[in-house]
Amino acid sequence: MRLALGISYLGAAYQGWQSQPSGQTVQDRLEAALAAFATTPIATLCAGRTDAGVHGLMQVVHFDTPLRRELFSWVRGVNRFLPPDIAVQWAREVPETFHARASALARRYAYILLESPVRPSLEAGRAGWSFRPLDGAAMQQAASHLLGEHDFTSFRAAACQALSPVKTLTRASVARCGPYWRFDFEANAFLHHMIRNIMGCLVAIGQGQRPPQWMQQVIAARSRDAAAPTFAPDGLYFLGPRYAPEWQLPEKTAAFEWLPQSFSRH
Amino acid sequence: MRLALGISYLGAAYQGWQSQPSGQTVQDRLEAALAAFATTPIATLCAGRTDAGVHGLMQVVHFDTPLRRELFSWVRGVNRFLPPDIAVQWAREVPETFHARASALARRYAYILLESPVRPSLEAGRAGWSFRPLDGAAMQQAASHLLGEHDFTSFRAAACQALSPVKTLTRASVARCGPYWRFDFEANAFLHHMIRNIMGCLVAIGQGQRPPQWMQQVIAARSRDAAAPTFAPDGLYFLGPRYAPEWQLPEKTAAFEWLPQSFSRH
Repeated sequence: MRLALGISYLGAAYQGWQSQPSGQTVQDRLEAALAAFATTPIATLCAGRTDAGVHGLMQVVHFDTPLRRELFSWVRGVNRFLPPDIAVQWAREVPETFHARASALARRYAYILLESPVRPSLEAGRAGWSFRPLDGAAMQQAASHLLGEHDFTSFRAAACQALSPVKTLTRASVARCGPYWRFDFEANAFLHHMIRNIMGCLVAIGQGQRPPQWMQQVIAARSRDAAAPTFAPDGLYFLGPRYAPEWQLPEKTAAFEWLPQSFSRH
Repeated sequence: MRLALGISYLGAAYQGWQSQPSGQTVQDRLEAALAAFATTPIATLCAGRTDAGVHGLMQVVHFDTPLRRELFSWVRGVNRFLPPDIAVQWAREVPETFHARASALARRYAYILLESPVRPSLEAGRAGWSFRPLDGAAMQQAASHLLGEHDFTSFRAAACQALSPVKTLTRASVARCGPYWRFDFEANAFLHHMIRNIMGCLVAIGQGQRPPQWMQQVIAARSRDAAAPTFAPDGLYFLGPRYAPEWQLPEKTAAFEWLPQSFSRH
């Protein structure tokens, strides 16, 4: 039987998603909890690996197991063995043709940024920070240059393992939420550090250090040196993958409502 | 010169506001940072002490100092010596007749509660939890019984040092924010554990274990035994005091917008 799980986690305490010898990753904690619940090792495959310090609102994993349990037991039972900052949100039985990574049509991310002369406190580790005021129109104009199919080499970390730097971005939006800014990105796939590198450029443009058209030059350069430094992971949230409706998987979790939302502040 | 500071903090890591021999309180951290910045000891008085695990969106303190610095230096400079989960938000010079506690006309608190079969993850330590569905109309009806002047002995912790159990509650509202519930309370002053004890009763009513009118009986009993157990501190936020407009102090901080808000989810 193949199962898919939706997972929410705070990335602050972990060295990213992907399993490491240190054992200090979200995948390590999840697989330890699954093993404790199932009393047998379970290896998982995820929809999108996240970096150290990056949060997940709806990571999706799949695995095969002969174990028969009520679906909600895979939620409540596994959560008993997980630390407080990680929780399985839902469990679904899926056909063996479903693959958490390969079946994902797109990935969604949000970046939350505090614009304030004062650094974050309650939001420490959960929001990026700009102490300079940001120009929303300039950032939105720059972000629109990212839409469509591009060679995103300029935003690609050296360690990136993707086969191709060409990705298709279908959403790049900028919205003010009171003192916070929210950036939403959706693409068929993202390169390593791609959003954090894009954020570095958008903030440089928002602060007036560069004009909005600079984004076009950065894309065209196809060189990491052309872009701004990698922005902090603190405010980056993996919202989750998108799958075809036929798989009948949830599209969001309760934690989606925890983030500042643009339509919420008037 | 008398200064007032507005402070935001996450209470999760601290043994409450009030200074303790352990040094593990928000006041201890603040006074250590003030001393490091001013290179002389500074003792502060606050608007409202918070319990262990309770968060502060705008605690207000005052102190006297002969030191002359730009007001924003008291923000940025002191924040350099504070841990990431505490930050001074503003500094104002106030007349010597201002007193952070005695001048406060009222205190505002909010409680955030996740209603979900799944426990919190990203919101761990920042939201209470009810795995059972809650009846908003029943909770609002019960909360309305709390409005006005009452002897709140039934909601008072044994350790409470208040001179009188009679307080005047001017706001007790219940609002749904997606999967979260937000409860807002305002009173001239609160007793020790008063909101957490009220929350225990409201959740019991919301879950259908008690009828809304039970709240009236609990109030009338004037006995701690009559009320529900003390609810978790996790979702409790001290929004801050209210002062007369003549003091010209800020009424909120950026972090106010970090909490789920009722008008934000439709």
